[in-house]
Amino acid sequence: MIIVMEPNATAEQIDHAARQVEALGMRAHVIRGTERTVIAAIGEKREQAKEALETAPGVAAVMPILAPYKVASREVKSEPTQVTAGSLVLGAGVVGVIAGPCSVESEEQILATARAVKEAGATALRGGAFKPRTSPYSFQGLKEDGLKLLAMARQETQLAVVTEVVATEDVELVAQYADVLQVGARNMQNYRLLEAVGAAGKPVLLKRGPSATMDEFLLAAEYILNAGNPQVILCERGIRTFETHTRYTLPLASVPYLHRKTHLPVVVDPSHGTGHAYLVADMAAAAIAAGADGLIVEVHPDPERALSDGYQSLNFAQFHAMMQRCRRIAQALDLNLRTLCDARRPGGLRALQPTT
Amino acid sequence: MIIVMEPNATAEQIDHAARQVEALGMRAHVIRGTERTVIAAIGEKREQAKEALETAPGVAAVMPILAPYKVASREVKSEPTQVTAGSLVLGAGVVGVIAGPCSVESEEQILATARAVKEAGATALRGGAFKPRTSPYSFQGLKEDGLKLLAMARQETQLAVVTEVVATEDVELVAQYADVLQVGARNMQNYRLLEAVGAAGKPVLLKRGPSATMDEFLLAAEYILNAGNPQVILCERGIRTFETHTRYTLPLASVPYLHRKTHLPVVVDPSHGTGHAYLVADMAAAAIAAGADGLIVEVHPDPERALSDGYQSLNFAQFHAMMQRCRRIAQALDLNLRTLCDARRPGGLRALQPTT
Amino acid sequence: MIIVMEPNATAEQIDHAARQVEALGMRAHVIRGTERTVIAAIGEKREQAKEALETAPGVAAVMPILAPYKVASREVKSEPTQVTAGSLVLGAGVVGVIAGPCSVESEEQILATARAVKEAGATALRGGAFKPRTSPYSFQGLKEDGLKLLAMARQETQLAVVTEVVATEDVELVAQYADVLQVGARNMQNYRLLEAVGAAGKPVLLKRGPSATMDEFLLAAEYILNAGNPQVILCERGIRTFETHTRYTLPLASVPYLHRKTHLPVVVDPSHGTGHAYLVADMAAAAIAAGADGLIVEVHPDPERALSDGYQSLNFAQFHAMMQRCRRIAQALDLNLRTLCDARRPGGLRALQPTT
Amino acid sequence: MIIVMEPNATAEQIDHAARQVEALGMRAHVIRGTERTVIAAIGEKREQAKEALETAPGVAAVMPILAPYKVASREVKSEPTQVTAGSLVLGAGVVGVIAGPCSVESEEQILATARAVKEAGATALRGGAFKPRTSPYSFQGLKEDGLKLLAMARQETQLAVVTEVVATEDVELVAQYADVLQVGARNMQNYRLLEAVGAAGKPVLLKRGPSATMDEFLLAAEYILNAGNPQVILCERGIRTFETHTRYTLPLASVPYLHRKTHLPVVVDPSHGTGHAYLVADMAAAAIAAGADGLIVEVHPDPERALSDGYQSLNFAQFHAMMQRCRRIAQALDLNLRTLCDARRPGGLRALQPTT
Repeated sequence: MIIVMEPNATAEQIDHAARQVEALGMRAHVIRGTERTVIAAIGEKREQAKEALETAPGVAAVMPILAPYKVASREVKSEPTQVTAGSLVLGAGVVGVIAGPCSVESEEQILATARAVKEAGATALRGGAFKPRTSPYSFQGLKEDGLKLLAMARQETQLAVVTEVVATEDVELVAQYADVLQVGARNMQNYRLLEAVGAAGKPVLLKRGPSATMDEFLLAAEYILNAGNPQVILCERGIRTFETHTRYTLPLASVPYLHRKTHLPVVVDPSHGTGHAYLVADMAAAAIAAGADGLIVEVHPDPERALSDGYQSLNFAQFHAMMQRCRRIAQALDLNLRTLCDARRPGGLRALQPTT
Repeated sequence: MIIVMEPNATAEQIDHAARQVEALGMRAHVIRGTERTVIAAIGEKREQAKEALETAPGVAAVMPILAPYKVASREVKSEPTQVTAGSLVLGAGVVGVIAGPCSVESEEQILATARAVKEAGATALRGGAFKPRTSPYSFQGLKEDGLKLLAMARQETQLAVVTEVVATEDVELVAQYADVLQVGARNMQNYRLLEAVGAAGKPVLLKRGPSATMDEFLLAAEYILNAGNPQVILCERGIRTFETHTRYTLPLASVPYLHRKTHLPVVVDPSHGTGHAYLVADMAAAAIAAGADGLIVEVHPDPERALSDGYQSLNFAQFHAMMQRCRRIAQALDLNLRTLCDARRPGGLRALQPTT
Repeated sequence: MIIVMEPNATAEQIDHAARQVEALGMRAHVIRGTERTVIAAIGEKREQAKEALETAPGVAAVMPILAPYKVASREVKSEPTQVTAGSLVLGAGVVGVIAGPCSVESEEQILATARAVKEAGATALRGGAFKPRTSPYSFQGLKEDGLKLLAMARQETQLAVVTEVVATEDVELVAQYADVLQVGARNMQNYRLLEAVGAAGKPVLLKRGPSATMDEFLLAAEYILNAGNPQVILCERGIRTFETHTRYTLPLASVPYLHRKTHLPVVVDPSHGTGHAYLVADMAAAAIAAGADGLIVEVHPDPERALSDGYQSLNFAQFHAMMQRCRRIAQALDLNLRTLCDARRPGGLRALQPTT
Repeated sequence: MIIVMEPNATAEQIDHAARQVEALGMRAHVIRGTERTVIAAIGEKREQAKEALETAPGVAAVMPILAPYKVASREVKSEPTQVTAGSLVLGAGVVGVIAGPCSVESEEQILATARAVKEAGATALRGGAFKPRTSPYSFQGLKEDGLKLLAMARQETQLAVVTEVVATEDVELVAQYADVLQVGARNMQNYRLLEAVGAAGKPVLLKRGPSATMDEFLLAAEYILNAGNPQVILCERGIRTFETHTRYTLPLASVPYLHRKTHLPVVVDPSHGTGHAYLVADMAAAAIAAGADGLIVEVHPDPERALSDGYQSLNFAQFHAMMQRCRRIAQALDLNLRTLCDARRPGGLRALQPTT
């Protein structure tokens, strides 16, 4: 930690700050520059409140050297983490695609979608049973009935199920049905929920909050890891900026940035990240090219009649085309974009063959 | 709702969109312009998903006319709502000041602070017992012990207690001790929590999420109102922007904007809104001048030793000076900035007299 | 400057970085921490590219200690600068108000406005003759004819004239007519223009660019100061954020922040800062309460017929009411909100008396 | 244009707004909804100030239907524009890569870079001779000497030269040396400069301002097109958001969005868009995958010693690797990523063969 003193800080103030550093269990190393004095605090720990030092008289700024997260960091674990949940494998060179409707709406809808996304090459099914909706007047999801439909779709297609849990009191129920528990963007800093999913024994897909910094995002993952769950998938789904032609702004540089800072796999959500169906395939392709470990994409049999997020959902043909493009890129870059199809239908779709 | 067709939309697409409008229970009014056709959908309801229409072929954009919130809106209730919770009165011309530490740390700390802020003119005490912290390694609050200390401080000072609740499972417990339940910025879209505090029978102070739009903020309030609780205080506490010299950017134009759109009272948090103690008093004064119904301010006996948020907390002398400045402005603008002090100590602090 | 090495930086890389520091003319002080090594570079100068160091192998980050601007800083000149331009005085406790139309449109319009704003208490007249417009299809200003009309209005009212210059080739012409040269937000980083107005011998009002950081803003001022012109007024006019209910987001904490970092006076533009006439008076009042040295406000005889910015312009009655409210706040805070009126019409408007 | 009235607008106000619509030369079509009245204004033109209508009493909002730009729009010209400038071809399925140093520093530096980037597959050389720098204390470029060095590099390598012009008074000089005139992000709304480059008879590369909306960006292009120059290349180079781990946030969804709205080619600048060399190749690959018509990338022989932007410059080996990856993706997607090399050195680098 570096403590920068004000240019006119007195000797007393410098002493005081140095003593405070020592009181926090660090060693203070005072460096007198030409215009300012700085104090290097040696032995920094993540738990130490830099805040206390910032309030000391004569202190201009405090700059921590250590990242605030630990278990999530590459410094602690340098090899990439691969997450496996049934048919879904993500990370360490394997690319997984999670696809399905925003909300589970009916048996017919979820089964048709599961079959279609599997055939197009997805390795997991998404679908919301508990829906956090901006307006209390919007459709709120089928709840447990939705979970049962997801389990039915898994039964038929063998696709792993990824579904959102919105409250601690639902974690046990959702974990009975889901292969991966999703924590939504609005709940990224719902710490009680993070602790609960951390203790539930299932992999977790954690979405970045739309105004979360990278440190905040990784600290949210740290809550889950800290609860004993090493199977965390990070999901970039767009941030809030001044842009209005897209629903959110999808900053794909997050992918290589996160790969440098953390061993956890990173997936991209081009559906929420753009908010318009016509932008999804281009951003999916870009995410694969940027090195993402996976995608999570909204697909619906008839987006025009979807109960939620229709405007950003692909229909089956669009998703199929998107997957073909992603597969070509993955092949060109020697990535392993897995599919389940050819294993199960040997004579089947050549276009959907795995890349390795 | 206005449906704008693409310039090259076909007659069939226009018909299709019009039929969809009718299918949603509205009347379609097709207007053929020189370059585009638009469809006015008459009979719009808040529940109607504009999203479905956005996905129809040939549709360029859908523009809703109605605000998405209803019970919170001025259109439904034109006179301002005044919220009363013990000593705290806010709204409809009465200005209330909530002050106290970020976290309750000890009996001595909370009692000293309660006395000091009351003497300086605050009408309610804030203090966190359940603390949502960005890092799992930070101090997480005294929990129920903290609530008991807050109740003790109220007992002595008669100050109403405002404290945060972070999870549905804690609502009942916190409601036993608090006069006002605070929902923090990170939980603004934790809808299950909003419903729970809406049902708890206590006034709620709802903080704006740092990337929430005004519509999202008012829809979050709508969840609480919709659960039967009309006593909602909105709190502007800053948004996330590219500025880094302040912790958040405090957009005070929210105050007059919200006053135009909703009848609910609006308070400003200059502590989180700036993140630096030296900026707090100026922003508090500005908030009063802009017409805020109240302030919520972090005050600590010794900010340098605070367990959280010390860098943005005022000490007692700073808070006293801030209140004097706010009182002068309130007087100049004929606002009723209430205090409890002179009522209880008749010979007491002249500087702290109420403005009416 | 502090150079933070990567956790796994080799001894060679540390040596290399230290030698680079010395090659840049600074002294390198290597501090080996428990997890990382940092190098304090003593003797930092503003001209030194921290960028070079950032690219050295093994370097994680470079943190400059000195602010990048110099002449603008409080460290170099601690007492506040007061700018005087004819009737306009700003800074060091004196508050000035600049008011007038977005564009000069006609003799009648500018004269009527000049009289009205003076009577209401403004001490300078604004009005655009050269208009930078987002669309090539919008009204682009009356050019030199507009400047002549401004001079005519000054002749009659003695109000100093503040008007924008958009290109180096116009500086000489505009300087013949203007008392203060305005550099607009779009040109904040038009360095050639900054140098030209810096050499023109007239005070400059520099508007903050909507995405400029505070360092960039002060460095733009530094260009002008560096060209030999000490009379620079900084203008906060709002930044671009995700908010859409206001045209820009007006971050009033800029006022106390800038007062801490620079000796230059700071004015606020609540017209562009909000983009809606109904928000202007509240933000003007808030700016005065926050300690602004002045305001610049759009006023038009008939906003509905304005050729530009009508939606954010006040009419005369609204401006008069705004000024009364600001005057009350200024009086309450012992600020000197000057007017010209009573000096020239001794029996005149009592409501418009100066505060000192 | 759709004029939405306030819910409580009077019959008189509705009449007044309708008359205003007619006075602006449009036909007013009044639609009375269940809760509000809206007026459709038929015959909208781009020049019409929606602003005037917004200030009319009783008007809540005005929503234009037409995009504000015209010549740039797909509606006016549906086939994509291909820009050709010497060796550089961009657009309509052809991908061009512009590479070179931030600043021209010396003959040796620019020649070595030109040779290296050509060999790696670039089809144009970038290099700044006139540098707009945030600080007056930074290196400002070699000016005309730099232009001469660029011309020398072109002479040797046949690479087209792309270089920035920062002021109208330099346009003629720069146009003598450059094949493409670059307008930098800081000057995107320097309308006088846009008009000057529009009249200079050379293709223009227009960089998006870091807080420019898409409409503002396209209107800036419209200034150039309107001056008679159809050869405009749009460049997405990142926007300013709350993210600090990247210098700017690079929103690649701009590429497909712009392709839908305009016929002009779109290139991406992953160097400024990320600000860190280690992120550049991933974002370059992503841009190609998203459908960009080209890239502009900073390359330097020795980034550690660059006079500007070293931290985001690639060295030759890094650029070579980036190009190989981009070429693989282009091949996979059947894009024509042209190179000059094999044409000139028939026995030459197999890895650098064009994709078609």
